[in-house]
Amino acid sequence: MKIAIDAMGGDFAPENIVKGVNLAKKELSDVTFQLYGDGAKIRQFLDDETAIEIIETTEVIDFHDDPVAAIKSKKDSSLVRAVTAVKKGEADAVLSAGSTGALLTAGLMLVKRIKQVSRPALMSTLPTADGRGFDMLDLGANTENTAHHLVDFAILGSYYAENVRGIEKPRVALISNGSEESKGSPTVKEAHEILSAMTEINFIGNIESRDLLSGGADVVVTDGFTGNAILKAIEGTATVLMKEIKSAIMAGSVTTKIGGALIKKPLSGLKDLMSTDGAGGAAFVGLKAPVVKAHGNSSELAIASALKQIHKMLESDVSGKLVKHFENMDK
Amino acid sequence: MKIAIDAMGGDFAPENIVKGVNLAKKELSDVTFQLYGDGAKIRQFLDDETAIEIIETTEVIDFHDDPVAAIKSKKDSSLVRAVTAVKKGEADAVLSAGSTGALLTAGLMLVKRIKQVSRPALMSTLPTADGRGFDMLDLGANTENTAHHLVDFAILGSYYAENVRGIEKPRVALISNGSEESKGSPTVKEAHEILSAMTEINFIGNIESRDLLSGGADVVVTDGFTGNAILKAIEGTATVLMKEIKSAIMAGSVTTKIGGALIKKPLSGLKDLMSTDGAGGAAFVGLKAPVVKAHGNSSELAIASALKQIHKMLESDVSGKLVKHFENMDK
Repeated sequence: MKIAIDAMGGDFAPENIVKGVNLAKKELSDVTFQLYGDGAKIRQFLDDETAIEIIETTEVIDFHDDPVAAIKSKKDSSLVRAVTAVKKGEADAVLSAGSTGALLTAGLMLVKRIKQVSRPALMSTLPTADGRGFDMLDLGANTENTAHHLVDFAILGSYYAENVRGIEKPRVALISNGSEESKGSPTVKEAHEILSAMTEINFIGNIESRDLLSGGADVVVTDGFTGNAILKAIEGTATVLMKEIKSAIMAGSVTTKIGGALIKKPLSGLKDLMSTDGAGGAAFVGLKAPVVKAHGNSSELAIASALKQIHKMLESDVSGKLVKHFENMDK
Repeated sequence: MKIAIDAMGGDFAPENIVKGVNLAKKELSDVTFQLYGDGAKIRQFLDDETAIEIIETTEVIDFHDDPVAAIKSKKDSSLVRAVTAVKKGEADAVLSAGSTGALLTAGLMLVKRIKQVSRPALMSTLPTADGRGFDMLDLGANTENTAHHLVDFAILGSYYAENVRGIEKPRVALISNGSEESKGSPTVKEAHEILSAMTEINFIGNIESRDLLSGGADVVVTDGFTGNAILKAIEGTATVLMKEIKSAIMAGSVTTKIGGALIKKPLSGLKDLMSTDGAGGAAFVGLKAPVVKAHGNSSELAIASALKQIHKMLESDVSGKLVKHFENMDK
């Protein structure tokens, strides 16, 4: 299988991207890595060129570019060329740590959505206390969603959790302002009714956002505006708390500082839990092939784990299965 | 001034409610506390009866009752009687730790909204790392809101932060999926445009939910569905992280456990930061008089702090000022 990689996208590109490929290559022996970008710069960080194809591109889309305009004007950018490779069948999937907006736009325009999927969504695997994790979507590909969109998200997320994360009959839940069936906006109530009647997914009802990190569901469905707000609230709270713990210890007595030094190890384990290094990227689900966005500030470990995630997506053919599922719904 | 108190509402009623009154009474010498409920039970916990009025009621609304039905059928409940006292002018404000739905319904039906306010909202003061805090609304009184509702929330929140929390020209921000003006749902973009043109509030634009606890704004405005989801995501993340820290320490080596014991004090400071004891209750803003909901599991400290919050609301006449503001808008 072939994975197209935007080697120039992200805060630490091409260094972390290429080093991530070096790492992933050791584990993924059946993958050809296509690196799109400035060949000379890419080669600075590349261990060797086995299983590597370097495709020279001359432009880079950065975070300040307007996504839609950039896709049209920067045809020879590493991002557009990498996505185009999937469209042309020269690659099976694409990874970028560049502009989210540009990748979403290019994915939608070039890879295209599965015909019967109303709206693609951005989905990430987030950590839970028990290490099992949960997939949440939509994280912001859309700013408004109908009940029908939410139902499609539930199917997309369920297939992903089952095929890529290996969870049998994943528990799918809908974000609402209460766990009772009667709770929610009109849109959420309508989605709840449709999902309750579906046999192909294991819908467990509403979930409140306070029960996410404790593992209340395997797949969490919500509209893109709310999903984005929840994701960033979790990130912000974790960041502020870890910082406060650190500064409380540093501002404390000598005793406290010694205590802080002694618990450094378990606390760093906690940091791992909240870290994105092992979680892979955000998948833009509902398209005909895997399109994955890694964090802009991804470490080489994060890039390697996103590549392993894509490998699982290709190996399990989750996109192909979804195409078939939605085709059958049409009949 | 007179505060009507639902002495029977909440998980630890009437004990924590009455003990909270005992505490608040020491600081609030100009308040008469009206306790609605079972007089015999109330007197078990009451220090003395100066500045206290006990009003006997025979019914209690609990968390399982349907709010609207309960308001109508349990006319002699402590909650309905306490809210009715405000309607009749026998009390200036009301506090309950009972059913949120019942209090919102009773508040809306009996105390009534300020005529020109499109929708009342539930608002709480949440903690920030610097101790300043921020007010967020709506936390779930509504499940869907228009741009016009959001604009009213901004005015309500701004008046509250300025009058009750003493913040000069409070920075008001709108939750969105990006800080740029161009980001957001159609509703958020419309609200952004209206707020930008208003001179009476200090609107600073959009805010992402990751910047709340670090103090990005003094008043944070969003629809009730999103606000509820953000609030519970913050709560859930803080709870899971504190629990994980504790169990990481307990599962660690002897060294780690000693370290844990040594940092117990700063960590409990952090717990205070996230605790609701000092934050007061959730105010149901947009009504003609203060209606405040304390957490169901409120400690006596939390009840006392909600009473002090109501005292500030009455002292500053924030409700009266809002009535005038909205009357003037009408002209």
